[in-house]
Amino acid sequence: MKTLNVDLGDRSYPIFIGSGLLNKPELIMPYIKGQSIAIVSNTTVAPLYLDKIHNMTEGFATTDITLPDGEKYKTTETLGQIHTEMLQARCDRKTTLVALGGGVVGDISGFAAATYQRGINFIQVPTTLLSMVDSSVGGKTGVNHPLGKNMIGAFHQPQCVIIDTDTLNTLDDRELSAGIAEIIKYGYINDLDFIDWLDQNMEKLLSRDQEALAYAIFKSCEHKAKIVAADEKETGQRALLNLGHTFGHAIETGMGYGNWLHGEAISAGMVMAAELSKEHGWLSESDITSMKTLLKKANLPIAPPAEISPERFSELMSIDKKVQDGVLHLVLMKSLGESIISSDFDKQALLRVLGA
Amino acid sequence: MKTLNVDLGDRSYPIFIGSGLLNKPELIMPYIKGQSIAIVSNTTVAPLYLDKIHNMTEGFATTDITLPDGEKYKTTETLGQIHTEMLQARCDRKTTLVALGGGVVGDISGFAAATYQRGINFIQVPTTLLSMVDSSVGGKTGVNHPLGKNMIGAFHQPQCVIIDTDTLNTLDDRELSAGIAEIIKYGYINDLDFIDWLDQNMEKLLSRDQEALAYAIFKSCEHKAKIVAADEKETGQRALLNLGHTFGHAIETGMGYGNWLHGEAISAGMVMAAELSKEHGWLSESDITSMKTLLKKANLPIAPPAEISPERFSELMSIDKKVQDGVLHLVLMKSLGESIISSDFDKQALLRVLGA
Repeated sequence: MKTLNVDLGDRSYPIFIGSGLLNKPELIMPYIKGQSIAIVSNTTVAPLYLDKIHNMTEGFATTDITLPDGEKYKTTETLGQIHTEMLQARCDRKTTLVALGGGVVGDISGFAAATYQRGINFIQVPTTLLSMVDSSVGGKTGVNHPLGKNMIGAFHQPQCVIIDTDTLNTLDDRELSAGIAEIIKYGYINDLDFIDWLDQNMEKLLSRDQEALAYAIFKSCEHKAKIVAADEKETGQRALLNLGHTFGHAIETGMGYGNWLHGEAISAGMVMAAELSKEHGWLSESDITSMKTLLKKANLPIAPPAEISPERFSELMSIDKKVQDGVLHLVLMKSLGESIISSDFDKQALLRVLGA
Repeated sequence: MKTLNVDLGDRSYPIFIGSGLLNKPELIMPYIKGQSIAIVSNTTVAPLYLDKIHNMTEGFATTDITLPDGEKYKTTETLGQIHTEMLQARCDRKTTLVALGGGVVGDISGFAAATYQRGINFIQVPTTLLSMVDSSVGGKTGVNHPLGKNMIGAFHQPQCVIIDTDTLNTLDDRELSAGIAEIIKYGYINDLDFIDWLDQNMEKLLSRDQEALAYAIFKSCEHKAKIVAADEKETGQRALLNLGHTFGHAIETGMGYGNWLHGEAISAGMVMAAELSKEHGWLSESDITSMKTLLKKANLPIAPPAEISPERFSELMSIDKKVQDGVLHLVLMKSLGESIISSDFDKQALLRVLGA
């Protein structure tokens, strides 16, 4: 087992990564402070792993809350369902919420914990590759709004994160690839060596080699933890983590939440960010080709869906959270493995990238 | 003008108290960090004071959001209205939200600010006595849930609070008295001298003497700020501020939000807390009488509504936030002006106080 400490002062917490961790009650026990827990999962994950959490938390008063599965349920209505079921079960301010599932369960449960009686403890048990490498670090929680993804939310750090790589054996191939998109992202932000490693080990990751997965997860969480520790509330450099995301969010919103997986949208979004970087003369055609080759190797899309017109794309991007005081900030690449935050890009070049 | 600094480390902020402050742009200007503001008020307050805020914030892109008036609209639906209107107006992460109104507007707007794009700055301009002495200190924000008052919310500190005592001239008498209930509360928590002052100056307060009001508001905020600075997240002594509130919340929920004003419910709740304290031998009959006399002088209720049965009262109190790990904590009085937090009270005595 590997342990990574996310360093956030009095909000620091450990991430445990390894095989068979859901059979180790001693990992979760020290992080449950009260006498009761609420386990939030969904209809897909609950039949697979809920019993394991029950076994790990024997002795605590337990409320099981099962959500419908899918990004389209990441709404204030589902948030209300969690709150209502917790109130009905008499959960109180010392109840610990356990989020068991992927990014949707993690984000919405974390936000439920952030806002239930003005904030209770929570523990994340991510079961998808995407949530292991993304939402398990940094405390971003929230729900979607019809007018924009993740628009409503809060920063709320977990007490600990338990990543059992065995749970990836039940993940479908498309979800696995979507997770790999976020892993690749860390390489393109600031670690070209990691890109090389991924290029060499993509087969192993796709065939779910436990050791390769654990390494890639640890490396990704480490990258993210370093950036988050320096800028918890995203006033500056944390925005680098949004490489591909402004384009990607527009794709997700434009296509209707859940039709494109988040990681798939980020994959196409990274290519678009790369193409805009090329327009500025920062990347070469061969840089773009090597990026596309790696993403294709991971079975990921390398272009946005044709259904979204350039006009609609612009509109969707204009209400992204990366807009500050009316100025759009994008993450671009000065070179492969060297990303920057920029508001000083060529607007016409952006329109060309959007297909106008 | 009096200025009180609420000392919360990097979340510290000033409260400005005085007459005519809504004519002073220089007070609000330094606290607006971005280039846009959203002003949230309600249908009662907007016609009276919205123009003053517009005049104070000339030059900023401004979105006006007007809520229906009343505690019954302190819901997740109204919260959604604020978020939707802000998204439609392209408010971003640097937008400052200005909450103009009473406790409902302040609580719901503060929660909207806490959760809009994971948290934006906000400024409070309370226009009721209750919100001036209660919600302007401490950063508690939130909405009601059908199963319990203030059950959904967050801690989110404002950038500054501007209390213009002139706005109390438009407050109706019942609301004024409700605010006085919270002022009286601070005296009974730990300042018997303040109770004497209130007893001597009640006529002045009720006739809206500006100087008396400013003193009572400053004193109340100072009391609350001291307790909050020592225990921001209410892990201990901050709970003293809930004197009368566990009973009071049960009254509000049981009667339907908005039928009893919060301060009225707290008034009756304080008498109930005093009566339970008497059951333990801590207060005398004459203590109770002096408390009732003061509250009656302020035109406040001194007994709960007959409509709520003792059984319903118990049920309503069992889901209060003051319940931790299944144990009910109440604020009781060891003597007048000396409150304590107790879980070790006589359950039978409590039932007698509830009328069983």
